[in-house]
Amino acid sequence: MLKNPAIVAAGLAKFGVREASYKDLISEAGQACFEAAGGAIKPKDIDGFIICTVMPERTAVQSHTASMAEECLGIRPGAMSLRVEHMCQSGNLGIRTACAYIMAGLCETVMVVGAEKLQVPVPDEIFLNMSTGLDRDWEACQGVTAPIMFAMCAQAHMRKYGTTREQLAKVAVKNQVHSAKNPYAQFQSGVTIEQVLNAKRITTPFGLFDCSSISDGAAAVIVTSAERAKDYTVKPVYFIGTGQSVHGLTFANHYEDLSHWPPLKQAAESAYKMANIKPADVDVAEIHDCFTIAEIITSEELGFCGKGEGGPFVESGQSDYGGQVVINPRGGLLGCGHPLGATGVAQTAEIFRQLRGEAGERQVKGAQIGLTHNNSGPTEHVVNIYSTEVVS
Amino acid sequence: MLKNPAIVAAGLAKFGVREASYKDLISEAGQACFEAAGGAIKPKDIDGFIICTVMPERTAVQSHTASMAEECLGIRPGAMSLRVEHMCQSGNLGIRTACAYIMAGLCETVMVVGAEKLQVPVPDEIFLNMSTGLDRDWEACQGVTAPIMFAMCAQAHMRKYGTTREQLAKVAVKNQVHSAKNPYAQFQSGVTIEQVLNAKRITTPFGLFDCSSISDGAAAVIVTSAERAKDYTVKPVYFIGTGQSVHGLTFANHYEDLSHWPPLKQAAESAYKMANIKPADVDVAEIHDCFTIAEIITSEELGFCGKGEGGPFVESGQSDYGGQVVINPRGGLLGCGHPLGATGVAQTAEIFRQLRGEAGERQVKGAQIGLTHNNSGPTEHVVNIYSTEVVS
Repeated sequence: MLKNPAIVAAGLAKFGVREASYKDLISEAGQACFEAAGGAIKPKDIDGFIICTVMPERTAVQSHTASMAEECLGIRPGAMSLRVEHMCQSGNLGIRTACAYIMAGLCETVMVVGAEKLQVPVPDEIFLNMSTGLDRDWEACQGVTAPIMFAMCAQAHMRKYGTTREQLAKVAVKNQVHSAKNPYAQFQSGVTIEQVLNAKRITTPFGLFDCSSISDGAAAVIVTSAERAKDYTVKPVYFIGTGQSVHGLTFANHYEDLSHWPPLKQAAESAYKMANIKPADVDVAEIHDCFTIAEIITSEELGFCGKGEGGPFVESGQSDYGGQVVINPRGGLLGCGHPLGATGVAQTAEIFRQLRGEAGERQVKGAQIGLTHNNSGPTEHVVNIYSTEVVS
Repeated sequence: MLKNPAIVAAGLAKFGVREASYKDLISEAGQACFEAAGGAIKPKDIDGFIICTVMPERTAVQSHTASMAEECLGIRPGAMSLRVEHMCQSGNLGIRTACAYIMAGLCETVMVVGAEKLQVPVPDEIFLNMSTGLDRDWEACQGVTAPIMFAMCAQAHMRKYGTTREQLAKVAVKNQVHSAKNPYAQFQSGVTIEQVLNAKRITTPFGLFDCSSISDGAAAVIVTSAERAKDYTVKPVYFIGTGQSVHGLTFANHYEDLSHWPPLKQAAESAYKMANIKPADVDVAEIHDCFTIAEIITSEELGFCGKGEGGPFVESGQSDYGGQVVINPRGGLLGCGHPLGATGVAQTAEIFRQLRGEAGERQVKGAQIGLTHNNSGPTEHVVNIYSTEVVS
């Protein structure tokens, strides 16, 4: 019998190019999370702590950041303390790891903080840092970068399924229109289809707005047992399903058909099965639109539309308000910016607010089932599913 | 009802100053682990993978190392993939996190690899890298390093309890005598008390042999559910207890009395309670002797001897073969070297061998209960406990 853990509080630090230090960002998000709980949860109630962060060793000359963050926030966890990293999957992995500890009975109430300070003073250093996510010996050293990897996926998808440049652009427009309603997002003014199509070219077929930005930011949530959740809030949001699948790091080794992402399909199937739901049951999804093509392929592999239909799906508005499922109401990575470890935690904070009916002008009406997804490349995916109700 | 996960295989790469790359070390340990299982466990049986590693971002310009390691070993985990970091606690935290996922029912069979390549070509870079484990803003920037922190603990303990320089030295002698019997250890020739006392001074009261070395190395174990364990081996070693407690990162903030380590006592009590054993039940312990004083204070806080009696305890042979509990038969960090993330996993590999009666000339006779411990500073500790039998 599954005991569903629950999210009971969430807080954010604004994403963008921030004057704040790495520590400042952590403190800002963690304190916002405690404040959002309205005094119901105090640092002494936290017996587990996880920080999701990719490269503070490079950007802040700092390892050992779980303890550092706990000290910033006045937390002394008596049962668990951990830093979790898996490049861009780090945030959602931190959440599912907290849930695993709670489900195992090894701790009860965990704060999960995602944080990254990617904007450092030397631009060359930023690009070297980002390249640490690729295999140094086989790919990073050849100049392969994330935009190139995903551009190859886009080209394959366009060739095989007739996906258009305009359909890609539509993802960017939708998500930046959403982010303009999110005060914590990096991009606040929206973009038009013309702006996306005419933007500076990055790598074919992507222009600037097809690519998420290298940002600073942090986010925090508190996860606890189903039993304890009711002590902290009248509206817990339950963690009801999760799946992950990883097919290696190097891009070249893995696919003949770059338009299909089998590990994502597998991770989603595991999560749906555990949650006992179908894709059509999902009301709101925060998915990993690191590049526009990623949202399109992810919509397909998650089963929101048929394989190859991701382009028409976004074009027809089926992934926007009033459609089948609202994808990335927060603004996605394209609208919010992408501070690696912080992204999955901020996605979770958005689902928490949406399922509680507290998302303001971004609210998805009547949302009861929400999903978060991170990739750390086309070959690696994690999916978590949340509900207003426990699974019986 | 607790379902105890079990260790079913273990493998090591030799610790030391290695010509091997970071990837080489991972492959060596992982392959040794599969080979040790004698073909009973194959890469396709592994549905979860954890790498415990502290600073590949600095030493190998590489984040995202879980996927990289999986690819090296031909593993495609369909349920979980993670990198865990918490400075010197990373290894034992990786193991307990694998167990948490298994106990939660989120995956079944996890390979845990600990790996570090700390010896890089530029010596100044090595010291900068090691300093990332301390708080950059408050302590690392002032020149505080691990030897200084632990030397202050030693001074406090000597003043308060009359612990002698010779008692400290005895820890180094015992552990290097042990490591001389361990072909995977960095130090193979043993040391005498005179050699320890007359060695190059590092920081009062420590000489060279009181300090563990900055080493390369890797280790791997496979953890699975109690149900599955019997398919893989006739002698599983069960994970029966665990505890962790963290009181922040900066050293200066935390203790009036540096000779007492309350979070270690708390972590141990949690682990003993879960395992339903007393300290006197432990036959063999792999504890974190990063410096000689650490073994002495840890012996006390784990309850192997009274508070303040850690010096006489080692001096009288109570922590050696024939004594109350054999501490660090592998040779400890002082004898094996200390490749951060690899240490806790190698400790676990030793307990696995000891409890199966396969430790050769290092065998602790009749060992049935084993314990592993890591600190990542005096304020942060994790304890895991193992048994030849499940806890009912």
